[in-house]
Amino acid sequence: MEIIEYHPRRDQLVYTFGGSAPVLRVQPGTALRLWSEDAFNNALTSIDDVSGEKVDLDFVNPQTGPFYVEGAEPGDTLALHIADLTPARSYGASATIPFFGGLTSTDRTATLQDPLPDITWIYHVDTERRTVGFQSRRGDFEVALPLEPMLGTVGVAPPGGEVRSSLVPERFGGNMDAPDVKAGTTVYLGVNVEGALFSIGDGHYRQGEGEACGTAVEGAMHSTIIVELVKGGAPAWPRIETDYHWGAVGSSRPMEDAWRIGQVEMVRWFGDLFGLHQLDAYQLLTQTALAPIANAVDANYSVVVKAPKALFPSADAYGGLHAHLRRQAADLR
Amino acid sequence: MEIIEYHPRRDQLVYTFGGSAPVLRVQPGTALRLWSEDAFNNALTSIDDVSGEKVDLDFVNPQTGPFYVEGAEPGDTLALHIADLTPARSYGASATIPFFGGLTSTDRTATLQDPLPDITWIYHVDTERRTVGFQSRRGDFEVALPLEPMLGTVGVAPPGGEVRSSLVPERFGGNMDAPDVKAGTTVYLGVNVEGALFSIGDGHYRQGEGEACGTAVEGAMHSTIIVELVKGGAPAWPRIETDYHWGAVGSSRPMEDAWRIGQVEMVRWFGDLFGLHQLDAYQLLTQTALAPIANAVDANYSVVVKAPKALFPSADAYGGLHAHLRRQAADLR
Amino acid sequence: MEIIEYHPRRDQLVYTFGGSAPVLRVQPGTALRLWSEDAFNNALTSIDDVSGEKVDLDFVNPQTGPFYVEGAEPGDTLALHIADLTPARSYGASATIPFFGGLTSTDRTATLQDPLPDITWIYHVDTERRTVGFQSRRGDFEVALPLEPMLGTVGVAPPGGEVRSSLVPERFGGNMDAPDVKAGTTVYLGVNVEGALFSIGDGHYRQGEGEACGTAVEGAMHSTIIVELVKGGAPAWPRIETDYHWGAVGSSRPMEDAWRIGQVEMVRWFGDLFGLHQLDAYQLLTQTALAPIANAVDANYSVVVKAPKALFPSADAYGGLHAHLRRQAADLR
Amino acid sequence: MEIIEYHPRRDQLVYTFGGSAPVLRVQPGTALRLWSEDAFNNALTSIDDVSGEKVDLDFVNPQTGPFYVEGAEPGDTLALHIADLTPARSYGASATIPFFGGLTSTDRTATLQDPLPDITWIYHVDTERRTVGFQSRRGDFEVALPLEPMLGTVGVAPPGGEVRSSLVPERFGGNMDAPDVKAGTTVYLGVNVEGALFSIGDGHYRQGEGEACGTAVEGAMHSTIIVELVKGGAPAWPRIETDYHWGAVGSSRPMEDAWRIGQVEMVRWFGDLFGLHQLDAYQLLTQTALAPIANAVDANYSVVVKAPKALFPSADAYGGLHAHLRRQAADLR
Repeated sequence: MEIIEYHPRRDQLVYTFGGSAPVLRVQPGTALRLWSEDAFNNALTSIDDVSGEKVDLDFVNPQTGPFYVEGAEPGDTLALHIADLTPARSYGASATIPFFGGLTSTDRTATLQDPLPDITWIYHVDTERRTVGFQSRRGDFEVALPLEPMLGTVGVAPPGGEVRSSLVPERFGGNMDAPDVKAGTTVYLGVNVEGALFSIGDGHYRQGEGEACGTAVEGAMHSTIIVELVKGGAPAWPRIETDYHWGAVGSSRPMEDAWRIGQVEMVRWFGDLFGLHQLDAYQLLTQTALAPIANAVDANYSVVVKAPKALFPSADAYGGLHAHLRRQAADLR
Repeated sequence: MEIIEYHPRRDQLVYTFGGSAPVLRVQPGTALRLWSEDAFNNALTSIDDVSGEKVDLDFVNPQTGPFYVEGAEPGDTLALHIADLTPARSYGASATIPFFGGLTSTDRTATLQDPLPDITWIYHVDTERRTVGFQSRRGDFEVALPLEPMLGTVGVAPPGGEVRSSLVPERFGGNMDAPDVKAGTTVYLGVNVEGALFSIGDGHYRQGEGEACGTAVEGAMHSTIIVELVKGGAPAWPRIETDYHWGAVGSSRPMEDAWRIGQVEMVRWFGDLFGLHQLDAYQLLTQTALAPIANAVDANYSVVVKAPKALFPSADAYGGLHAHLRRQAADLR
Repeated sequence: MEIIEYHPRRDQLVYTFGGSAPVLRVQPGTALRLWSEDAFNNALTSIDDVSGEKVDLDFVNPQTGPFYVEGAEPGDTLALHIADLTPARSYGASATIPFFGGLTSTDRTATLQDPLPDITWIYHVDTERRTVGFQSRRGDFEVALPLEPMLGTVGVAPPGGEVRSSLVPERFGGNMDAPDVKAGTTVYLGVNVEGALFSIGDGHYRQGEGEACGTAVEGAMHSTIIVELVKGGAPAWPRIETDYHWGAVGSSRPMEDAWRIGQVEMVRWFGDLFGLHQLDAYQLLTQTALAPIANAVDANYSVVVKAPKALFPSADAYGGLHAHLRRQAADLR
Repeated sequence: MEIIEYHPRRDQLVYTFGGSAPVLRVQPGTALRLWSEDAFNNALTSIDDVSGEKVDLDFVNPQTGPFYVEGAEPGDTLALHIADLTPARSYGASATIPFFGGLTSTDRTATLQDPLPDITWIYHVDTERRTVGFQSRRGDFEVALPLEPMLGTVGVAPPGGEVRSSLVPERFGGNMDAPDVKAGTTVYLGVNVEGALFSIGDGHYRQGEGEACGTAVEGAMHSTIIVELVKGGAPAWPRIETDYHWGAVGSSRPMEDAWRIGQVEMVRWFGDLFGLHQLDAYQLLTQTALAPIANAVDANYSVVVKAPKALFPSADAYGGLHAHLRRQAADLR
C-alpha cells in the first residue's frame, strides 16, 4: 500500500471547503500521513495568550488539503478510514472566545449582554500515561484526563460551486466536531465535484459531546488516513462506521433538524443493510439508536445518530469496506 | 425500611403533574413498590390495534401517584432512587401515531402533508433471555433486543399552580423519556409544593436515544422506588446520579435550549462538587461531558448532559446520598 | 343588550388559564365592562421601583375572570369582540426584567453571562393628545408615542385538565401579546371545557411587534367585550377578525413552528371562506399574507398570520358574526 | 448622472454570491438599468411545466452581476437605492417544489412523509390595472392581486473567501425575500471584499410575508438601481431605509435568531441616529418596532425589524443619503 506523507507549510493551509486547488492527487487505496495545525494556528501557547487578541475567527480550523482523489466523480462515495491519530505537540489549548460557544450569546443568538471573560487553558500532554492535564484558572483544581484524539473537521468540496468556511459542518462533512471521528472510524462522504477535494484538520486531543465552550483541547495532529472510493452510492449526509456502530451525522439549525437529518439518514441506511421498509427501520431505530450531540456551538449544530452493531444481525455496508480498511490499517502499524 | 405497595385501579390513574389529590402519604426513607399502566392504557395489545382508533392523546402516560412526601416544602430536594424495574406484562407495544413523533410533521411543526401510516408493533418479552422481540411489519425481519427497563416519566407538581399533561417534560421532571432513568439511578427534583406530589409512569421495556417515532417499547411496570428528602438545595432542573455519572436533564424547545439548560445545570453542580468557578467548570465539562438526546418528540425536547465519575476525583453529592440509597436498595432484594 | 360591569378585588385576580372557579356566569350576547390590573400588579409606579425586587414572575399578568359562558361546550367557538379599550391609569410601566426578554439570555436560552441591568421606565398618558411619553433613562431623549391600547392576554381554559400560567400563549389563546387584539377586533377561541372559562388581562397602552424587552407599556385597562358563542366549529388555534383582516395566531417554539401553525390555520380558514383546495389556499396566501411577530419573549413565541380582506372577494366568517358585533359595539357607545 | 444598461446573456448568469468575476465596474453615483431572469430560469411558462422536472435547485435565483464598485473596500457601506422595478414579462410563475417551502418537510426538517403534489401556478400581468391574476388549480376561483414588484435577492460577496448559493440569505444580504426591497428603498450592505461585488435577481411581481410555499410570483424584472458608497461604517447586517422606515434584516435559524439579529442591529442604529444608550434604544424599539417575517422557507429564515419614522424626531442616517438618492431617482424618471 502506497503511503504519502504531507506536512503543509503555513502558507499552504486553507480555511475553506471548496475554493482551493488540490495540494496532491491521490489514488484510491493510498494511505496518507498528514500533519495538521491546531484550530488556533498555534496562536495560544500559554494562558497569557488571549483569543480576542490572537485569533481571527475568519481564519481558524486550518485545513490540511485539499486532496484530489483520482476517479472520484459527483455521486460517488469517498471512504476515509482513520488508521491513526497522534498528537503532534506536547500541549493543547482551549479558550472561551468572546461571543462564541454554547453558553454565551453569539452573533446569531444575539443579546445585549457583555461577553464572558476571554480565558485560555493550556493542557499538557503526558504521552506515557496518555493524558492531558486540566488546571483550573481560579483555585488549584487539577485533573489528568485520558487522551482521546479525534478530528474536528473532515470534509469534501460542497456542491453548486459553494465555498464554505472550515468552521461549518454540513452535508459535505466539515466541522462536525464529532468525537466518533477517531482512530478506527471510517467516514463516508458523498462526492460533489471531480476529485472530491477532501481535507482534514482541527485535531482535538479530547472533547466532550457538544463541545460546550466552542473549543476542545485543540492540538496539532499526525493523522494516518486510508483513502478509498466507492463508485456511486453517495449518502445524502456523512455516514460513519466503526467496529461497533453504524452512524450518520446531521448538521443544521435548530438542533432538532440536525437530529432529524441523522435519523432519516439512518433509516435509509437500515433499508440498505437489512432490506427494511422505512417504517420498520424507523421503529427499530427508535428502540436502539444512540443520539449524542456532537457540537452545539458551530455555524450548524451536529448530532450523531448511531446504531450498535452488537444488537443486529451482521451486515456489510459498502461490500464490507470498513472491515477491509481495518485490516489494512493494522498492516500499516 | 418500610415498604409500601400500591397498585392503582384504572380510575385512580391520573394524567397530569399537579392538579390531583395525593393517593398516599409517605415518610422520607420509605420504599414504594408500584405498578404502573403502560402509556397507551393497554389499548394496543395486537398489531391490529391502531393508535388512531384506540388512543386519546389527551389521556396517555397514566401516572401512578401522586404521592405526598411528609415534610417536603418548596425549595427542598426530593430524591427518588430507582431500586428495581421489572416488566409487569409479557408484551410491550409501540406505534407510529399520526402526526406524533420525530420524523413526521406534528401539530406544532405543522405541514400540509399526509400523516405516516398508523402502525402498531408488539414486542414479546422473553424473561429468561431478558429480551424483547422486534418483528418487522413488512417482510420477515426479526431480532431480539436486550430488555432495558426505564421510566419515561417521573415528576413532581409544577410551581405557580400550573397543572401539566403527563406528556410534558419540564423543570419539574415529567415525561423526560431519558434512558438513564433506570434501576440504579437516583433522580433529584426540586420541590415546588407542600408534599412534592410526585408520580411515576410510562414504563419502557427499552428505548433508543431520541425515542424517534414517539413511542418506546411501552409496557406496564413494577417499580421499586426509595423516597428520600433533602431539606433545601433544590436544583433548578432535574439531576440524575448513577454509580457512573452525574447528570442533568434540560427540557425545552428548540433542542439547543434543552442542551443549554442541562449544560448550565451541570456547571452549577460542578461548582458544588468541586468548588470550581463557573468558567473552569464550563471548560472542564466541555472536554468531558456526554450529551445524549433523550427525546426529540415530546411537548418539550429533552437532553441529558452528564459527566463520567471515573474521570474526576471522588465527590459526594447531597452528602453521599446516592451511595447510601444504593446500599438500601441492595438490602431490599 | 345586557351590560355587566366587573372590577375584581385584588384577591379575586387569578394567574392561570384553567384551575379557577368562574367569577361570573354570562349569557352569549352580553357585553362586559371589565377592569384589569397591569401585568406587574401595579408594583412599578416610579423609575425607582425595580422589577427584581418588586415582581414575582410566578404571579404576573393577573387575569380578570374567568367567566363562565352559558351553553359553551367543548368543540364550540367562543367569539370575544373587543368593543373598547381605555387606559384605567395615568401611567404605564415597562422594565428590563433580569433574564427575561428577547435580547438577553433566559432560563431557557441559558448562558453564563450576567443579566442586563434591571431598569424601569414610566410612561405618562396624555389622554387629550392620546399619547404615552417615553423618557430615556440615560441622556434626555423624550418622545410622545401614540396611545394604541391592546390586550396582551385573552384566553380560555386549556383541554386535558391542564392549568397554565398567564404568561403562556398557546392553542387556548393566553399571553399572545398580539397588537392586533385591540378595539374593533373579534377573537375566536375553541372551547375546551364547559363554560369556556375565559379571562382577559395584561393591558398594553402600546407595544411594538415582538415585544422585544418582554414588557410593553403595561397598564390597568377598562375593556368592553361582547361575548358570543358559535355552536361547534372550534378553530384549532385562535383566529382574529377585524374590518381589514382575517388572521390566526400560532404560539410555539422555535418561532418557525409558531409561524407554521398560524399559516396552516389560515389555509384551513381560506378553505372555509372560499372553498379553496388546501394547495390553492397555500399558494394564494403565499402571495398575500402578512406575518408579523407578536412576541419573541414569552413561554411560547407567537406569530400572527393574516390576510387583508381588501384583496379578496367578500366572504362571511361564522355567518357574518364580526360585522354583527361591530354594529352592536357601535350601539354601546 | 451616468446610466449603464446591462442585460446578461444566459451564460452570464451566476448562481452564487462571491466566486465570480465582475461583469462590470461601476463608479459610485452611477445608475444601473438591469434585466434579471426569474428564479426558475424561465423554466415554468405554463401550468404543465412541473418544477420537479424542470428546475434544478442547485441553479435557481440567477443573479445579474456581480458588479465591482470602484473604491469599495472591506468595512465600507454599499448603498443600493432601488429607483424602479418593472416586470419584464407578461407572466409570473409560482410552484410547490417537492420538499421545499414552509408547510412541508424539507431536506433539513426531514421527515418520512410523502412530498406535497408538485403544482405550478401562472399569474398573468395586467400592466394597465397593475395586477397579477391568481387562478386556482382546482375549482374556478380567480382574483386579481395588486402588482407589487420587489427583489428577492440583493447581496455582496461574503467575507472569508466564502461563496454562497443565491438561495441563501445572510449577513451579506442575498436571498432575503423581503417585500421591503422595492422601489423607493435604499439597502445598506457591509462591504467584505474589494469592489463589493454585488448582484441582484429573483424578481417577485408580488409576495406575501413569509413566502409560505417557497416561491413568490417569480418574474423577470427591469431594475433601476443607483449605486452609492459610504466609506467605513459597515453595518453588521443589512439595513434598509425608506421614506417611512428604518429597518434591519436578520437571517438565521431558528427564526428567533433571525429576529434577535435584526432587533440588535436596530438597537445599534438607534444609538447612531439618536445617541441613545443601548438599553434606552431596546426599550423604545420594544414599543415601536414592526417585525414582519420576510421568509420562512430559505436556507436561513429572514426577519425584518423596522421602526416607523413618523413616530420619531427626524434623523439623518449616513448623512441624509436616502433623501439624496430619492431625489436622484426622481430625476431619472
